Amino acid sequence: MVVVMSPGATEADVDRVIGIVRGAGAEAFVSRGVSRTVIGLVGDADRLGMLNLRNQPGVSDVVAISVGYKLVSREHHPERSVIEVGGVPIGPDFLTVIAGPCAVETPEQTLAAARLARAAGAALLRGGAFKPRTSPYAFQGLGEEGLKILADVRAETGMPVVTEVIDPASVDLVASYADMLQIGTRNMQNFALLQAVGAASKPVLLKRGMSSTIEEWLMAAEYIAQRGNLDIVLCERGIRTFERASRNTLDIGAVPIAQRLSHLPVIVDPSHSGGRRDLVRPLSLAAIAAGAEGLLIDVHPDPGAALCDGDQALSAPDIAELADTTARLAALLGRVPTGATDAALLEPKG
Amino acid sequence: MVVVMSPGATEADVDRVIGIVRGAGAEAFVSRGVSRTVIGLVGDADRLGMLNLRNQPGVSDVVAISVGYKLVSREHHPERSVIEVGGVPIGPDFLTVIAGPCAVETPEQTLAAARLARAAGAALLRGGAFKPRTSPYAFQGLGEEGLKILADVRAETGMPVVTEVIDPASVDLVASYADMLQIGTRNMQNFALLQAVGAASKPVLLKRGMSSTIEEWLMAAEYIAQRGNLDIVLCERGIRTFERASRNTLDIGAVPIAQRLSHLPVIVDPSHSGGRRDLVRPLSLAAIAAGAEGLLIDVHPDPGAALCDGDQALSAPDIAELADTTARLAALLGRVPTGATDAALLEPKG
Amino acid sequence: MVVVMSPGATEADVDRVIGIVRGAGAEAFVSRGVSRTVIGLVGDADRLGMLNLRNQPGVSDVVAISVGYKLVSREHHPERSVIEVGGVPIGPDFLTVIAGPCAVETPEQTLAAARLARAAGAALLRGGAFKPRTSPYAFQGLGEEGLKILADVRAETGMPVVTEVIDPASVDLVASYADMLQIGTRNMQNFALLQAVGAASKPVLLKRGMSSTIEEWLMAAEYIAQRGNLDIVLCERGIRTFERASRNTLDIGAVPIAQRLSHLPVIVDPSHSGGRRDLVRPLSLAAIAAGAEGLLIDVHPDPGAALCDGDQALSAPDIAELADTTARLAALLGRVPTGATDAALLEPKG
Amino acid sequence: MVVVMSPGATEADVDRVIGIVRGAGAEAFVSRGVSRTVIGLVGDADRLGMLNLRNQPGVSDVVAISVGYKLVSREHHPERSVIEVGGVPIGPDFLTVIAGPCAVETPEQTLAAARLARAAGAALLRGGAFKPRTSPYAFQGLGEEGLKILADVRAETGMPVVTEVIDPASVDLVASYADMLQIGTRNMQNFALLQAVGAASKPVLLKRGMSSTIEEWLMAAEYIAQRGNLDIVLCERGIRTFERASRNTLDIGAVPIAQRLSHLPVIVDPSHSGGRRDLVRPLSLAAIAAGAEGLLIDVHPDPGAALCDGDQALSAPDIAELADTTARLAALLGRVPTGATDAALLEPKG
Repeated sequence: MVVVMSPGATEADVDRVIGIVRGAGAEAFVSRGVSRTVIGLVGDADRLGMLNLRNQPGVSDVVAISVGYKLVSREHHPERSVIEVGGVPIGPDFLTVIAGPCAVETPEQTLAAARLARAAGAALLRGGAFKPRTSPYAFQGLGEEGLKILADVRAETGMPVVTEVIDPASVDLVASYADMLQIGTRNMQNFALLQAVGAASKPVLLKRGMSSTIEEWLMAAEYIAQRGNLDIVLCERGIRTFERASRNTLDIGAVPIAQRLSHLPVIVDPSHSGGRRDLVRPLSLAAIAAGAEGLLIDVHPDPGAALCDGDQALSAPDIAELADTTARLAALLGRVPTGATDAALLEPKG
Repeated sequence: MVVVMSPGATEADVDRVIGIVRGAGAEAFVSRGVSRTVIGLVGDADRLGMLNLRNQPGVSDVVAISVGYKLVSREHHPERSVIEVGGVPIGPDFLTVIAGPCAVETPEQTLAAARLARAAGAALLRGGAFKPRTSPYAFQGLGEEGLKILADVRAETGMPVVTEVIDPASVDLVASYADMLQIGTRNMQNFALLQAVGAASKPVLLKRGMSSTIEEWLMAAEYIAQRGNLDIVLCERGIRTFERASRNTLDIGAVPIAQRLSHLPVIVDPSHSGGRRDLVRPLSLAAIAAGAEGLLIDVHPDPGAALCDGDQALSAPDIAELADTTARLAALLGRVPTGATDAALLEPKG
Repeated sequence: MVVVMSPGATEADVDRVIGIVRGAGAEAFVSRGVSRTVIGLVGDADRLGMLNLRNQPGVSDVVAISVGYKLVSREHHPERSVIEVGGVPIGPDFLTVIAGPCAVETPEQTLAAARLARAAGAALLRGGAFKPRTSPYAFQGLGEEGLKILADVRAETGMPVVTEVIDPASVDLVASYADMLQIGTRNMQNFALLQAVGAASKPVLLKRGMSSTIEEWLMAAEYIAQRGNLDIVLCERGIRTFERASRNTLDIGAVPIAQRLSHLPVIVDPSHSGGRRDLVRPLSLAAIAAGAEGLLIDVHPDPGAALCDGDQALSAPDIAELADTTARLAALLGRVPTGATDAALLEPKG
Repeated sequence: MVVVMSPGATEADVDRVIGIVRGAGAEAFVSRGVSRTVIGLVGDADRLGMLNLRNQPGVSDVVAISVGYKLVSREHHPERSVIEVGGVPIGPDFLTVIAGPCAVETPEQTLAAARLARAAGAALLRGGAFKPRTSPYAFQGLGEEGLKILADVRAETGMPVVTEVIDPASVDLVASYADMLQIGTRNMQNFALLQAVGAASKPVLLKRGMSSTIEEWLMAAEYIAQRGNLDIVLCERGIRTFERASRNTLDIGAVPIAQRLSHLPVIVDPSHSGGRRDLVRPLSLAAIAAGAEGLLIDVHPDPGAALCDGDQALSAPDIAELADTTARLAALLGRVPTGATDAALLEPKG
């Protein structure tokens, strides 16, 4: 932390600040310039923050330097992490696609979507049983019934399951069915929920808040890590801007920035970023090219009939094309796809 | 809902859309223009939304018209509501100030802050016992111990208590101590929490999400109302923009807009909007002038020692000046202040 | 400027930075902490900025401290300025309303609007002859013919004229007719235009860019001041955010912030901020309450027939109500209105 | 355009709207629903806009449908365009890199940068002679002297020159030296400048405004096209958001969206989007993968000594790596690079 004194600050002002800092057990280093004096502080950032030095006479500004997250930071953990979900790795050197329907509707729709997902090169199945919806009159998900459907489809296809949790009280229930717990964008700063999944024994997929800074996103991950769960994957899903042609604005630069600041894997959700089916392919390729370690994609056997976000779900023909380009791009960049592109899976099992 | 066909749409495309709409039990009205055809739909908006007409051949755009909130809308409830909190009214014709410390720290600090609050013209006491903090390493509040302090200070001062709830599991606990439940900005779309306070028997103070539209804010209020609790007060607290000179940007226009769309009272939090003590007075006056029915203000007996947001808390001399101007402005605008400006309360009771 | 070294920086890294800084003729002061070293720099900020110290080995961050504007800053000119426009003062202690039609259309419309403006308490007449429009197919203004109409209406009503200039080549022409030159929001960083009005002999009304920071706004004012023209009035007119219920978001906090940073007067445009007629009154009152030294308001004798921004223009009945409340609010706050509210002016001269 | 009547609108209200519309020579089609009536309008959008129907009694909303740009739209020109700059094509099937120093400083620096640019696979040289800078105290460019240096370097290297124009009065001068005229982000809505380059005989590179919507960007291109110049290339360069870890936020989705709406080529500036050297490579690859038809990159022989934006300029080793990956990615996507990657050019000519 650096305290910048104003041009008219007196020696007494400077001494007062030094006294407060030293009184709090921290160190203060003074630099006197021609027109201004700057005081460098070293000590516990939280205690220093509580001193409210900005309110002292003669103080012009207080500039924070230390970052607030430690466990998820790369500063003390330079090697980037690989997280395993039901045996499937997510991390550097891999390209892991998670796909499935936005919402679980029926066993048939979920199974069909899982087969599409696998055909798209997905190693993991996503699907929502508890849906956070902006309107209380919109479809809210099937609840535990949806979790059972997901477990059945996992048994049928062998794909581990990623599903959202929206309430601390249901974390144990969801964790008993799922292989990975998803925290949605609206819950990124639902601290009670972050602490609850931090105490769970399943990996967590943490979506970025739709207007959160990268620093706040990493701080939210720190909440989870602090409770003992370091199996966290970050997911960029578009931020809110003034642009109206797409649902959100994919912050593609957030991928390399988060990877530089944190050792956690970073994936991208091209479906919610754009909110338009025609943007899924270009945004997916951009994400992989920028270094994303995975994708989270909406697929639906019949997007026109989807109960949730049908506008952005991919169907079979789009998927084949996407899977092909993705695979070649991963190869070019030296990444190992974790899913098999097996066209035979598009056919129902005898 | 209006479906806009593209210039090249065929008669078959138009007929297909009409067929889908009528098949879903809704009405379709066709307008044929020189270059385009427009189809007006009338029926249940949720069902119409699920039809995903945007995906049909020949469809260029689908424009939503109906609003998604009903219970909190002024459309069917044109008279604006007055909500009572422990006997204190919030609503048109009144000016209600809610003040207190950002966080409850000790009985002494809370009582001293309550007296400052009362001197500032506050009728209601706010104070946080459960604090949602961006960093897991920041002070998280005293929990139930803080609620007890608030109850004691209410007994001492007679001021009803407003305090935040951050977890559905603790709604009953908080409601057993508080007179009004606050939903913080980060929880505006924590739907499990909204439903929990919707089932509680205490009024709710709903802060706007820091990047939420006014429509989403009203939809969040609808979640609460839908569960049976219509005693909701809306609180604008600044939105996130690119500007860095203030912590947030107070969206002063949101006050008259929300009042036009909803019958619920609207108040303003000038402390968090600006994040700077020197902005509290101008933003408070602006809020009242724009029609806000109340203010939510941070006060602290010793802001320099505050454990939370000390940078923005008002102390005694600021308060006297604010209370005076506020009272005269309210009089000019024909509003009845609900608090007494009683300077004697600044002195500790014998 | 402060250079923050990374935790692993070596002594050689620190010495290299010091050498570069001293080699450039500036001073460097070193503060060594437990885990980090901080170097405070004092010298010419532009030269220091060119050193690109962020690129040196061992440097973690470079934090700028000095502000880039000097002539418009309050740091060396603490008393706030009063600017005179055709004899009418704008500045602290006054409340100056500038009103008129968005675009000059005909002599009759402009004269009628000027009378409305005067009835609204306006001391200055605004009206656009050169209109910057988003679409090349929208009405672009009458050009010099419009300037002549404005001059005629000034002769008739005695109201000095404020009008926009959009091209450096026409600054002299516009200045030969107008009493004040307006720079529109889209031209706030049109540096050639800023320099041209900086060389003109008429006061300048500088609108804030729709996504500019307050610092950039003051830097744009500095461009004008640097060319010798210090008669500048700042105008906040709403910023661009994600909110869609209003055309822009009035940044009401920008008023006290700009007044604290700069000695220049600050006024507010409630018409463009909201883009809705029903927001003009609440935003006007909020602006005055927050300390704005004036208002810029669209009025039109027949808003429904306006060629430009008719949605937000006030007509006669709105104006009477606004003028009345504004006058009482100004009195409460101890401000002197510079316009006369003279209902007789609503009648055409015999 | 669609007029949505409010629930309480009367038949007289509906008839009044129809009368106004028909009186203006346009068509009106009425759709009566259970709770609302919708009126579809067909006719000239500008005339319809001037009717201000929103102000009529009983009107709840007016929804615009037609787009405002025609010449640059793909609606009537479905095949995407290829623009030639000094013989170098920019458009679908190609990948064209434009590179060079942010500012022209000396003949030696510019020549060295051009060689770096060519080594990076650039076919076109960019460099600024007229620099729009936020601060009036920052380096403003060499002016005509800089244009002469660019022309000399073109003669030496054979690379056509792209350079910025900031004032309508100097368009002819700049066009006499340059092969392509650049409009910077701050001038995207400087309509006098757009019209001036629209009348010039050189292709135009139009950067997106830093807070402009895609629609406004295309409307700005329409201003140029309307004056007769259809040789326009669009350049996405990052938008302004709340995120502070990068200078701007690259809106990668704008690439496919603009390509879908317009037939003009779209390129990306990864240097200004991120403002950080370490982001240039990931953002470049993302841009190509998303379909961008070119890149605009800052290079400098000695970034640490650059007079402008040195923080983001690439130097030789970065360039070699970028050129290699770019070439392989272009091949994968079936795109023809227009520049030769000729390492020999890194050596000065004997």
